[in-house]
Amino acid sequence: MVQVTVYGTGSFGTALANVLAENGHDVLMWGKNNETIEQINSQHVNTKYLKNAELNHQIKATNDLTQAVTFADVYLIALPTKAIREVLGQIDALITNKKIFIHVAKGIENNTFKRVSEMIEDTISSEHNDGIGVLSGPSHAEEVVIKQPTTVAASSNSETISKLIQDLFMNDYLRVYTNSDLIGVELGGALKNVIAVASGVIAGMGFGDNAKAALMTRGLAEISRLGETLGADPMTFLGLGGIGDLIVTCTSTHSRNYTLGYKLGEGKSLDTALDEMNMVVEGVYTTKSVYQLSKKYNVDMPITEALYNVLFENTPVEESVKYLMERGKKAE
Amino acid sequence: MVQVTVYGTGSFGTALANVLAENGHDVLMWGKNNETIEQINSQHVNTKYLKNAELNHQIKATNDLTQAVTFADVYLIALPTKAIREVLGQIDALITNKKIFIHVAKGIENNTFKRVSEMIEDTISSEHNDGIGVLSGPSHAEEVVIKQPTTVAASSNSETISKLIQDLFMNDYLRVYTNSDLIGVELGGALKNVIAVASGVIAGMGFGDNAKAALMTRGLAEISRLGETLGADPMTFLGLGGIGDLIVTCTSTHSRNYTLGYKLGEGKSLDTALDEMNMVVEGVYTTKSVYQLSKKYNVDMPITEALYNVLFENTPVEESVKYLMERGKKAE
Repeated sequence: MVQVTVYGTGSFGTALANVLAENGHDVLMWGKNNETIEQINSQHVNTKYLKNAELNHQIKATNDLTQAVTFADVYLIALPTKAIREVLGQIDALITNKKIFIHVAKGIENNTFKRVSEMIEDTISSEHNDGIGVLSGPSHAEEVVIKQPTTVAASSNSETISKLIQDLFMNDYLRVYTNSDLIGVELGGALKNVIAVASGVIAGMGFGDNAKAALMTRGLAEISRLGETLGADPMTFLGLGGIGDLIVTCTSTHSRNYTLGYKLGEGKSLDTALDEMNMVVEGVYTTKSVYQLSKKYNVDMPITEALYNVLFENTPVEESVKYLMERGKKAE
Repeated sequence: MVQVTVYGTGSFGTALANVLAENGHDVLMWGKNNETIEQINSQHVNTKYLKNAELNHQIKATNDLTQAVTFADVYLIALPTKAIREVLGQIDALITNKKIFIHVAKGIENNTFKRVSEMIEDTISSEHNDGIGVLSGPSHAEEVVIKQPTTVAASSNSETISKLIQDLFMNDYLRVYTNSDLIGVELGGALKNVIAVASGVIAGMGFGDNAKAALMTRGLAEISRLGETLGADPMTFLGLGGIGDLIVTCTSTHSRNYTLGYKLGEGKSLDTALDEMNMVVEGVYTTKSVYQLSKKYNVDMPITEALYNVLFENTPVEESVKYLMERGKKAE
């Protein structure tokens, strides 16, 4: 039995807290939303993110960061990428011994282009850092929490940490595969959101399954190209954290990135579409970083570029699709 | 303007005949179903396979094989894999000059394990054979015929033939990429049907998107392994004829392979499920060949093996899924 603090009370943090508790571990969740904390403690539900699912009764929640920090030596970081630097800075100021950091954020920091493990390294003093890992893969929280069979990849620069993540989370409905390519697993989770938003756009415009499959295939190719340039093993993009996560995100209405894209495809503005969502949509911020990275490293990413123009340059979606479809005759 | 005979009046043959006619080519379809032939000639529809779609009025159809053979020097072979050897034998007996053979069959011959281009080579005398190519990719006929944007790969051992296919079919809603890996493109189209049936099985059993994405990811890995053993470039499995076709087949209700699997997952027997289908389901026959190939070449293919046992050894679907989920802790 291991004590784990889960930072973040969103859908995936809650579903994984539930897995940990089901696996016999002692779990404290930390968050800022007092209503959600109260619900988890007294009613064992999180209606904002996981409607009707009953959570394990052993899970406790708090808004007290000092209590969260001292509760455990293993931390699960389930916060939006944008919030990580601030919260981890506050955590570091309170830590008095070494901690292990497992994160599930699927983003890249704007402007710095850093992966989340790099953001953790930046914000946590080395005397408080006992290792960093990531858990990623095709794992909609809505299905994990009702124990639908799910598989994910656990990765770290340290094999000890990868195996610790595997041991903590693996059970008869959640299979955890270790993967030694931390850069690839982190980038796969982040970059696939760009393609998921684009996939939603073309579905929202009324295009069919043929077009979506083509977009996903060519999208996988372009994010693999960028990943390899940034030091990832391109084979990782063929695994659970790459194509696996891409498939589940592009074909399921559970996906907030896909749903946002769909609204844009229907002709809504980015502001309107974001207003209608109840959650953080990582893919919007990631598209900006990925577009800038593609320019910086001179990697051809036509889908990312088309989406960037829709999101940030007010290019009509029709014009962007026309640009993608009317390129010349090419070899694959 | 090129004259093309299309052999087969099924859904994909009809949709591609329509593309050719729309592109200004002169098209004669050959088939055995007199009702369908009459419909195409007089009403410009094919209600058995493509319900309401109105076909180009220039398309003619016949059940006269001699007329079909003499009509053109370019043939599009859109027949089920099982029918190809017999029909092409009859065609060869009637041919008097060299013809180009483009096929769209997604199967492997039972017992011989031959790809369709090899079956064509076997049955057409060398003095009648002016080249062989394949067109494959994520292209549901139901969407192609209503001009939804679609992308496919054209492949041949001859670059001239690949480019001829590209020139014949490419237009503003059908993008054709050339690909020099004939083995990979043919195998991708055939092998993905095994994973599509398996994907339908788990959906029919009530599993969710996470499980399906995992099955597709691990399925892609195992069919790529077999493909590489058989001489394909593994990168082809990352392209339109590989993962692209896999995605569209595993996530769309248009797919007969997926639909058959779904019925099996609901608990129906193979005979009942096949009876309920109106069309040839290539994946059933392909699973037998692929299973035997995996044993012959000692390639680990757990999903194919589990499906083979369901289809041909009466193993209950629950037992097969249990086998897949309860393997030990592994690296990806």
